[in-house]
Amino acid sequence: MGSNNQNGDVLGQEFTQNVIDSMGPKTSPRLREVMTSLIKHVHDFAREVQLTTDEWMAGVQLINQAGQMSDDKRNEGQLFCDVLGLESLVDDITFTAATKSTNGLTASAILGPFWRQDTPHRDNGTTITFDTPSDGQVVYMHGKVTDVDTGRPLQDATVDVWQASTNGLYEQQDANQREHNLRGVFHTDAEGNYSFYCLKPTPYPVPTDGPAGKLLEMMDRHVFRPAHIHLMVQSKGHKPLTTQIFDKDCKYLKNDSVFAVKDELSVEFVPRKGDPEAALELVYNVTLAKAA
Amino acid sequence: MGSNNQNGDVLGQEFTQNVIDSMGPKTSPRLREVMTSLIKHVHDFAREVQLTTDEWMAGVQLINQAGQMSDDKRNEGQLFCDVLGLESLVDDITFTAATKSTNGLTASAILGPFWRQDTPHRDNGTTITFDTPSDGQVVYMHGKVTDVDTGRPLQDATVDVWQASTNGLYEQQDANQREHNLRGVFHTDAEGNYSFYCLKPTPYPVPTDGPAGKLLEMMDRHVFRPAHIHLMVQSKGHKPLTTQIFDKDCKYLKNDSVFAVKDELSVEFVPRKGDPEAALELVYNVTLAKAA
Repeated sequence: MGSNNQNGDVLGQEFTQNVIDSMGPKTSPRLREVMTSLIKHVHDFAREVQLTTDEWMAGVQLINQAGQMSDDKRNEGQLFCDVLGLESLVDDITFTAATKSTNGLTASAILGPFWRQDTPHRDNGTTITFDTPSDGQVVYMHGKVTDVDTGRPLQDATVDVWQASTNGLYEQQDANQREHNLRGVFHTDAEGNYSFYCLKPTPYPVPTDGPAGKLLEMMDRHVFRPAHIHLMVQSKGHKPLTTQIFDKDCKYLKNDSVFAVKDELSVEFVPRKGDPEAALELVYNVTLAKAA
Repeated sequence: MGSNNQNGDVLGQEFTQNVIDSMGPKTSPRLREVMTSLIKHVHDFAREVQLTTDEWMAGVQLINQAGQMSDDKRNEGQLFCDVLGLESLVDDITFTAATKSTNGLTASAILGPFWRQDTPHRDNGTTITFDTPSDGQVVYMHGKVTDVDTGRPLQDATVDVWQASTNGLYEQQDANQREHNLRGVFHTDAEGNYSFYCLKPTPYPVPTDGPAGKLLEMMDRHVFRPAHIHLMVQSKGHKPLTTQIFDKDCKYLKNDSVFAVKDELSVEFVPRKGDPEAALELVYNVTLAKAA
């Protein structure tokens, strides 16, 4: 019996192999691969740190609390992974696997928990900031979406953008912002161009009232995300891109609480002249890779 | 910046070290040890299987659902760990660490999610089966609690027992069983003896209506636990023992769905003569180690 305790030694690799071998023949090959590795690493972790039942149960309770706090507006399980760098890592794995060459290709970053499926489509040149706060700076953001290999402009690509307000809250977290404030889907024109007015992003803390916040506190870590704008760019026949762009001058650029920053995603906001609607401007071009 | 994506390679050990190094100086040494190992193993797992964002998000949703199903009568996060062998492993680690010698010492097994803190204390020789089902066989179970080193009987040790009925349900899961049916706390007498009437245990499936059941199905595994009785034995000045004893003839003895079986915990139910209350008998003696 693989689950024996042998002469007082802690249950070892034989026990772990027994758990792995319990998977039946109808397990899909991919699930078998994933669960085999997961079981090995979880067991090795427990043995390595000599995890006690009390510590394990404290972890179970944190995870149960994360589920209990999650709903269609909040995903605490995701945030829990984010503060451990896991979403950034799987995003990078997925992005690297999906693209043969990253040379010149716009880099990806994590989706995060605040994207919405039902964001309204808006016209180029219009705004996404409808409840502009008094401490907010308006930015005219525009750029071109092109194919990374041919340089050809991509017409009718969708640029889905979302950002928090200066109080650190996305509209679904904040009763004082109207529905769909600071989010919109734009379509590129024949030259591949998109444009809109938005806010200069500001740093904000991740939600700290749940188990992820508790874990951050126990790890003596700060809770801030550097100032960023979320983008999801899609064009027919191309790999979709989910990314974030970061204010290069933000103090949290080098220690993002969810580890999403990549050097090539930092951008510079510059003064804009002659536009009464915006004090700042940001040009951001996006390249997409062809779908396999 | 440790979180760079370097020339198209997947985020590697430098990224992982950056996440670990984000822990501040006020992190407790034990939490730092546990989180360092956890972050390393979780990242290595993701890289090893090239985990995609879709697969990771499917895992997050399973974990969130586990939390949402959990309440004071059910702990689905715990069950999720159990079917991966984790509770058995941490129980074994904790038990081995707590006892210098396991020679002759009663082995531990997992607590499971059905223990209750408010179980009534009952007199020796009384019963815990108040709603005996027609297919149930009553057992007179008795034994002695002694110190493992001296062999001395331990007086006023508590023997907390709980078991499922033949329908596979514990009383808190079953509206047809009265409160605290099939559970009780007994106190050993001056000779260290305890005794009570209970049911011969029968195999039952773990709950399959949640994400743990879904995972078992995906892994093509059966869902049964071998027939067992739960025991928690405590005596002043001794290490508390949580264990389970298993019917040696049960067909699931070698492939428990939660991997709790140890050879030394299998027991034999024998016919009992001259007792109109019970057709079977089980003698089970328990040894405890002195507290450190």
